[in-house]
Amino acid sequence: MSEHDRMNLLAQIDSPSQLKGLSPAQLQLLADEIRTTIIETVSQNGGHLAPNLGVVELTLALHYVFDAPNDCFIWDVGHQAYTHKILTGRADRFHTLRQYEGISGFPKRSESRYDAFGTGHSSTSISAALGITVGKALNKSPNRAIAVIGDGSMTGGMAFEALNHAGDLAKNLIVVLNDNEMSISPNVGAMSSFLSSKLSNKTLMYLKREMERFLKSVPGLGPNILQLLKRSIDSLVTFFTPGMLFQAFEFHYIGPIKGHRIDRLIETFQTARHIEGPVLIHVLTQKGRGYVHAECDPTSFHGVGCFDINTGKSPAPTTARAPSYTQVFGDAIICLAENDPKVVAITAAMLSGTGLDIFSKRFPDRFFDVGIAEQHAVTFAAGLATEGYKPVVAIYSTFIQRAYDQIIHDVCLQNLPVVFALDRAGIVGEDGPTHHGLFDMSFLRAVPNMVLMAPKDENELQHMLKTALEQPGPVAIRYPRGNGIGAVLDDTFHSIPIGRGEVLREGRDVLIVAIGSTVQASVKAAERLEAEGIDAAVINARFVKPLDRELILDYASKTGRVITVEENALQGGFGSAVLEMFEENSFFPKAFKRLGISDAFVPQGSQAILRNLCGIDAEGIESAVQEMMGRHHGAILHAIGQTARR
Amino acid sequence: MSEHDRMNLLAQIDSPSQLKGLSPAQLQLLADEIRTTIIETVSQNGGHLAPNLGVVELTLALHYVFDAPNDCFIWDVGHQAYTHKILTGRADRFHTLRQYEGISGFPKRSESRYDAFGTGHSSTSISAALGITVGKALNKSPNRAIAVIGDGSMTGGMAFEALNHAGDLAKNLIVVLNDNEMSISPNVGAMSSFLSSKLSNKTLMYLKREMERFLKSVPGLGPNILQLLKRSIDSLVTFFTPGMLFQAFEFHYIGPIKGHRIDRLIETFQTARHIEGPVLIHVLTQKGRGYVHAECDPTSFHGVGCFDINTGKSPAPTTARAPSYTQVFGDAIICLAENDPKVVAITAAMLSGTGLDIFSKRFPDRFFDVGIAEQHAVTFAAGLATEGYKPVVAIYSTFIQRAYDQIIHDVCLQNLPVVFALDRAGIVGEDGPTHHGLFDMSFLRAVPNMVLMAPKDENELQHMLKTALEQPGPVAIRYPRGNGIGAVLDDTFHSIPIGRGEVLREGRDVLIVAIGSTVQASVKAAERLEAEGIDAAVINARFVKPLDRELILDYASKTGRVITVEENALQGGFGSAVLEMFEENSFFPKAFKRLGISDAFVPQGSQAILRNLCGIDAEGIESAVQEMMGRHHGAILHAIGQTARR
Repeated sequence: MSEHDRMNLLAQIDSPSQLKGLSPAQLQLLADEIRTTIIETVSQNGGHLAPNLGVVELTLALHYVFDAPNDCFIWDVGHQAYTHKILTGRADRFHTLRQYEGISGFPKRSESRYDAFGTGHSSTSISAALGITVGKALNKSPNRAIAVIGDGSMTGGMAFEALNHAGDLAKNLIVVLNDNEMSISPNVGAMSSFLSSKLSNKTLMYLKREMERFLKSVPGLGPNILQLLKRSIDSLVTFFTPGMLFQAFEFHYIGPIKGHRIDRLIETFQTARHIEGPVLIHVLTQKGRGYVHAECDPTSFHGVGCFDINTGKSPAPTTARAPSYTQVFGDAIICLAENDPKVVAITAAMLSGTGLDIFSKRFPDRFFDVGIAEQHAVTFAAGLATEGYKPVVAIYSTFIQRAYDQIIHDVCLQNLPVVFALDRAGIVGEDGPTHHGLFDMSFLRAVPNMVLMAPKDENELQHMLKTALEQPGPVAIRYPRGNGIGAVLDDTFHSIPIGRGEVLREGRDVLIVAIGSTVQASVKAAERLEAEGIDAAVINARFVKPLDRELILDYASKTGRVITVEENALQGGFGSAVLEMFEENSFFPKAFKRLGISDAFVPQGSQAILRNLCGIDAEGIESAVQEMMGRHHGAILHAIGQTARR
Repeated sequence: MSEHDRMNLLAQIDSPSQLKGLSPAQLQLLADEIRTTIIETVSQNGGHLAPNLGVVELTLALHYVFDAPNDCFIWDVGHQAYTHKILTGRADRFHTLRQYEGISGFPKRSESRYDAFGTGHSSTSISAALGITVGKALNKSPNRAIAVIGDGSMTGGMAFEALNHAGDLAKNLIVVLNDNEMSISPNVGAMSSFLSSKLSNKTLMYLKREMERFLKSVPGLGPNILQLLKRSIDSLVTFFTPGMLFQAFEFHYIGPIKGHRIDRLIETFQTARHIEGPVLIHVLTQKGRGYVHAECDPTSFHGVGCFDINTGKSPAPTTARAPSYTQVFGDAIICLAENDPKVVAITAAMLSGTGLDIFSKRFPDRFFDVGIAEQHAVTFAAGLATEGYKPVVAIYSTFIQRAYDQIIHDVCLQNLPVVFALDRAGIVGEDGPTHHGLFDMSFLRAVPNMVLMAPKDENELQHMLKTALEQPGPVAIRYPRGNGIGAVLDDTFHSIPIGRGEVLREGRDVLIVAIGSTVQASVKAAERLEAEGIDAAVINARFVKPLDRELILDYASKTGRVITVEENALQGGFGSAVLEMFEENSFFPKAFKRLGISDAFVPQGSQAILRNLCGIDAEGIESAVQEMMGRHHGAILHAIGQTARR
């Protein structure tokens, strides 16, 4: 086979059904081509490299054996579906991966009929696959649903809930456990010892003891035989794990299977396809497989920006970049923890993503990675708080949605001093709608006792963290993904009075009340408007809750016109809080407009593009002010019968 | 010991330390007294009877061995803490159980220093106890935290997350598994087979096969010995369960222990107290123990209203009562499912609580009880929806908080037609703040694609359910706990146009826009106001989202004054939706007031008392209108500098 042929297999695949004519050797060549495609695309666009390289053969074998889209694959977390996308008619558009209007980095029902179920958050796949399996059974369809789930995702509680229900239902569900011995960070917890066939000494001793007791109880075994058996017990206990757990859940367990041997995988899936009842296939894979830099450092190559394929290095930034909010948070919490032994930090499998890696080394006794387990993380923090500790729970905005009930029921109802550091709040960019953090202001603001802040820049984040740690009750700080605005970082942190905003710019014509990531854009808009003769005041609200009532009312009454700006859903968000406060004070401005995310999910794309689309960048704010000044100047408008503006 | 002495032990106990002087026989007498107290109080006040009767001895033994409040007990779900309350200085006030300003039906930190952690929702105890354990370890305290968790609660994902983390941390956590082989309804899933020592045939066969393979592999065992061993294998496999699961999680497993033998329990806890590392003590108890009616029917006696102690029967209502919303929902879904084979129903361990008991018998293949697993329930429903089914997920408002992320990420983002039937929305009454459903309008309204309705009465609930099942996307219907208002139930259901409210009363002076349970009160208020010469229009909004923009704007512009009424948090709730809509339409009323739940947790008490306190009953609405008419009549008020009204 010539080099030309070798690199042309992929070009011949329009749909997964075409795989069925290929030999195992050809499939392996195809795997190589797919790896090359993935590495090249991710090196340009960024993306999830290591998890995708780990499942190339697994995905090929699944598509070889099963009949998509009639059979449904559900990719847990969704960050390993690139091969699936390439094989299902999206190879030609794969270069648009994660770009605005391009191919999504995650499975997406609206993108392809091969994407049976959208994923992005962890541990949903078994639940979804079970629902699909039951639906197919009710429909008398012979087709299957196959959940592909990593060992890390298995620590999420809902995966356990689903296993429990699946065992009870006894339908023909197939779960492929993609075991690479790590999730995003190395795994924690009992589940990992289960899967890695490393029983604890305690369990081993227990098993041996019980076995010996059993053997002694058998009448007629002479001492020699007993001795012989006891010496062999070690080899017996190996079968207890990892299959036992899944056996107990009534799953038929197959494995472990070598996950880069296409022939073995095909054989196994062909067997599994005909088994009645739930089946779990345990596949061992290597994260980053086939790309040396990712194999050596799968954590760094889990999710990456663009990089040089030869060196594995990211390009040096052309200009000096401000540190990220994540870094500033990570540094600030160390500084605060050094002065206060009660400060502890908790992450849910996002050690470096939340900036806690240095903290975890500096204060190993005061750091807790609970695994992918946001619900537990929050209630665990509440427990620590009752003992006088000041837990900082660092979880992305989109993932804290998982722990909403725990925030209400375990933290806020008891008014416990837990600090929530919500990174990736607002528009996150290329990861798209599963990962944007656009609801936190709405759902957290509703809960009594919660204080909710958002810093205008990375320096203010430091002060807010200090402020939060001094509070006697719950506080959430939400801050955006990405680099700060280049603010000078004060060496000494100071407390911000709770509920106190600040005036950044005086102005007579209109008041812009901004929060968090939209403050800088508001100031820029005000500067532009000045050139047009519009004199806009800008308030950095700092607090979504409690609002700085006096300051905002004062300036709102001076200008009569108010625009609020937030990177959050407009329904119940920051602007609504301002509206509510006006209502409570019977204040009705001459004109009012809330800028933010309107009532639709935001697509993927760069943060700049999306903020522009949503009208919350400087340009959008400027034009909203212009419109207000033009249309509503000096008049109280009773717009009955008018069509809605949006 | 005379009868007089016999009944006086309890009166001598002010604090649990006094238990330590009692003999096992005296402790058993005390247990009898406590049972009598519990049965008498619950027969008067209602409450959780069966779970509390099951743990009398367990609680006595815990308090006998451990040193509360230095040692901390965390009662999972909290519905079994009556004995604990009686023993910790609250016996004299126990007759106020669940009443307004009385003793809470759940552990509550603000009520007693013996209540180490508030509970009410399921599966939080291991997380909280682990946090407390870690806090104590960091504080170098020798004291312990003890989680008491039922087998039902063990199916909740966060219990699993916590077990996983606890095994990893290896701290001195104690978990008491209170195994009564049922949670609220009988248990489902693999966990129950784990605990009840009933390994499945599949697992048994697997174990036997593996054992035989092992024995054959041992060199030097003659056929006779092999035969002998094979015959004995059956007795070996019994030790694999229930301890294995917890062993795998690195817990030291003790049990099962008979849970009504105080001496055994004391002995076991004394041993456990000195074990290093996490311990799980498996205790077998009987729900309803010691009260024959509850022993025979623990499900009905799980949570009860008042009843006659001799007969176990509830008193016949003195007047004919309207059916509950729950019953009407239960009947309506059967009716709709009979005409549409795609309708399926899902509950999370609340079979009769949600009114699905009859459905489950009529349509066993289309009914799914997933256990205490709200997260899984929602994503499982989403999976079913992708296969063309119309899942109705019936979960109480307060518990749907557990599945917020799944609603956003799995249902709404994919715009799947899942119907959420949210019973117990609003003020639930005596169960208090852990159980009120006061946030759903705020947090569900924030999510794109969601349609959110609330019926004014039980008849409208029927029509809304039909309407919801015809929608192509997600719909939530929230309705209150308790009896309907006595509306005539139409035999035929009709669809309500999406986003269409209705005018219940014309009026020129003020518009009351009400939703759900507050509609009837608003009509009553309007009738009273008429007598005072105030002419109030009343709109039943029906939809929180989408709002009936045209109708509300029309009437708001006619009257100029608007009052919104909702049984939900004011932050981001229904009234805020109306405010937002006015802003979007540049409509500013002369006066505006939102009635609802202000920014504080609502205590326990009857629904009537609490609705009055919150100002959302007819009286509260009436006086809000009076105030508005008096203070704001005919004037646009720019209340700058005014103090806030609340």
